[in-house]
Amino acid sequence: MQLFEKLIEYPEAERLVLESTPLLPVEEKPLGEALGLALARDLTATTDSPPFDNSAVDGYALRSADAEVGRVFRVVDEAPAGRPAKRSVGEGEAIKIFTGGVIPEGADAVVMVENTSGWGEEFELKKSPTPGTNIRDAGEDTRKGDIILGAGTEVGAPEIALAATQGYGVLPVYRRPRVVVLSTGTELVEPDTRDLQPGEIFDSNSYAVVAAASEAGAEARRLYAASDDAQTLRTAIEEALLSADVVVTSGGVSVGEKDLVKSTMLALGVEQVFWGVKFKPGKPLFYGTRDETRLFGLPGNPVSAMVCFDLFVRPALMRMMGREDKRRPRILVYFERDIVNKFGRLHAMRVSLKRTQRGWLAESVGAQGSGLVSSLTKADALALIGPASEGIPAGEPIEAIVLRDEKLQ
Amino acid sequence: MQLFEKLIEYPEAERLVLESTPLLPVEEKPLGEALGLALARDLTATTDSPPFDNSAVDGYALRSADAEVGRVFRVVDEAPAGRPAKRSVGEGEAIKIFTGGVIPEGADAVVMVENTSGWGEEFELKKSPTPGTNIRDAGEDTRKGDIILGAGTEVGAPEIALAATQGYGVLPVYRRPRVVVLSTGTELVEPDTRDLQPGEIFDSNSYAVVAAASEAGAEARRLYAASDDAQTLRTAIEEALLSADVVVTSGGVSVGEKDLVKSTMLALGVEQVFWGVKFKPGKPLFYGTRDETRLFGLPGNPVSAMVCFDLFVRPALMRMMGREDKRRPRILVYFERDIVNKFGRLHAMRVSLKRTQRGWLAESVGAQGSGLVSSLTKADALALIGPASEGIPAGEPIEAIVLRDEKLQ
Repeated sequence: MQLFEKLIEYPEAERLVLESTPLLPVEEKPLGEALGLALARDLTATTDSPPFDNSAVDGYALRSADAEVGRVFRVVDEAPAGRPAKRSVGEGEAIKIFTGGVIPEGADAVVMVENTSGWGEEFELKKSPTPGTNIRDAGEDTRKGDIILGAGTEVGAPEIALAATQGYGVLPVYRRPRVVVLSTGTELVEPDTRDLQPGEIFDSNSYAVVAAASEAGAEARRLYAASDDAQTLRTAIEEALLSADVVVTSGGVSVGEKDLVKSTMLALGVEQVFWGVKFKPGKPLFYGTRDETRLFGLPGNPVSAMVCFDLFVRPALMRMMGREDKRRPRILVYFERDIVNKFGRLHAMRVSLKRTQRGWLAESVGAQGSGLVSSLTKADALALIGPASEGIPAGEPIEAIVLRDEKLQ
Repeated sequence: MQLFEKLIEYPEAERLVLESTPLLPVEEKPLGEALGLALARDLTATTDSPPFDNSAVDGYALRSADAEVGRVFRVVDEAPAGRPAKRSVGEGEAIKIFTGGVIPEGADAVVMVENTSGWGEEFELKKSPTPGTNIRDAGEDTRKGDIILGAGTEVGAPEIALAATQGYGVLPVYRRPRVVVLSTGTELVEPDTRDLQPGEIFDSNSYAVVAAASEAGAEARRLYAASDDAQTLRTAIEEALLSADVVVTSGGVSVGEKDLVKSTMLALGVEQVFWGVKFKPGKPLFYGTRDETRLFGLPGNPVSAMVCFDLFVRPALMRMMGREDKRRPRILVYFERDIVNKFGRLHAMRVSLKRTQRGWLAESVGAQGSGLVSSLTKADALALIGPASEGIPAGEPIEAIVLRDEKLQ
């Protein structure tokens, strides 16, 4: 039997994880596939944008100096988007122009068709434009050579739009981490395969961890190894190590002799970074590295597993993808009653959130037992209570990690 | 030439979109593939969870009545997770038990191995448990028959964990909308294919709309039809109608004669729900239906296209997937200076957000021209100004739609 050698504090554990996590290699991805990833380099504008003065509306390009209400203009050419006019605009002349069309030489304003007598060979002006009216100037959005998107920017729809206007068809991004999730434990049964025998439970951790890793942007898959047998486990971890950037197990990291995960990892050459965090739920968390692979041994209790994932694995995945800023939102919350922390270590309490005049009111979702999976579906946030054993007086603001962004309204 | 018959207000337009949007068919999806989708039915617990009284720790199950510090216990059997002990616990006896193991008959408490002299055939007790210590009761999380997840719940990692513990391997969810995005306009060139000729620009809207639709959870693809030619456009829209739940175009909905998108849609039997919204940027928005397909004609200006997508198409996609509650967050913001709205219609102003002591300070990202794609990458939110032409006095709270959740910290 092995006891914890040294428990460390949560901020220290988070720091050790982030410090030892490498950025993944850079790949050139087509625009659509770069969605959700982070730019590995600054992108610069390849041209002025828009590349030429163009019309913001459908109407007529003309000389604003000529533009008296009631005057009749002669239409001498047209300039649809994509096809510049062949002529320039002289006095009393106009060129029919469409949104995005190149402003013809001589013209300094566009009058909307709604402000004329309509489309024809001639038209009467109903409203005078001033110089520059309805003209989008070349380079008004970006100038050639400008940095349009900085390294580290997360690629969303607006960033894809901006890169495309500059002719970028592929983007340099950090690739997605490959996560292999091991499901270990003789008591585990795959859901929807058969009825439970006495002492058995359905596996839920590996499904939840795969889902959470996918939500974070990783490519995650399960590897089924429902056994506490040392050899089976060793074979599964060896297989995971072949392809994974990150290996995540749950269970088998506690102090009992059946808890083989940690010892198997160590036997396979994994270097332990830490084992044991002064933190609830999730004290027996194991973290280690082997070459470029990062290994997390999450506790087996479903709540501990998911909370440890959110607090340690998710930041590591974000960091690997270059998305260092992308932590879960943190807000200040308060409780209506005094909160006691009798655990002698930091308690990440599952709470629901309610907006009040004083700020965010947190309320425990109920019993905080580590096996209460339903509590996770009710939790909006994790309130960080402690590590002082005295707890928190009613009304005192403390930090909470928001799990459901949509609550922040 | 056709002018707008009737402009409607933004809330009316949003209502018309949502009212005319059907829920998509329900599919049974494996747990992992249900991520991000909404449950179409209530899920009930199939068994008590946990299904049996079990140990929360590694240690010894014993009778709390016997548990005096210093007493030596005899270990008579063991109960690893997944394999119940064969014996019951008598006076002075203990059964070695592991996290998740079934509590043996006779025992009413578990003492952690850390509170004993260690693993052996005998051990000495170092700390006394009380009845129920370290025991997770059968059904303490959920009881058979309870509704564990209500219809409409979005499936995230916690919901997958909870469903799995109840043996659900597939979940009934509304399927993802199929979105076809048409890229139309003679002036458009595919990024990264060739240099621009005079009057040409790179296509950005269709890439951005596909990305935004994917972010919302849809299966989106581009259909390339870079032409203002009526027949080409008709063929492309017909192809889109074959497979799409939602067709999205950009450009070609304004009042000019080259604006063929709307007329082509109408010629193909699309019923117009509205055309024209008293709203900036995005006045010429077209919305129509044909049988089960919904068609959005977005304006061609990149900013208008993306803002209209966020305000009209995204809510429709969410509604199709049964995620009615999943609107973008809305918050109150204020400006430091008076804000004038000279457009005579609602202005969705692109703003950045800053947390201050008074609340959320909004600041315009700069020029609000509809062609300024870079402004979208700087915007944290859309402040809804108007429709009163007088504008907003400094300090007055107004509603804003948050585009970047991660700002809300």
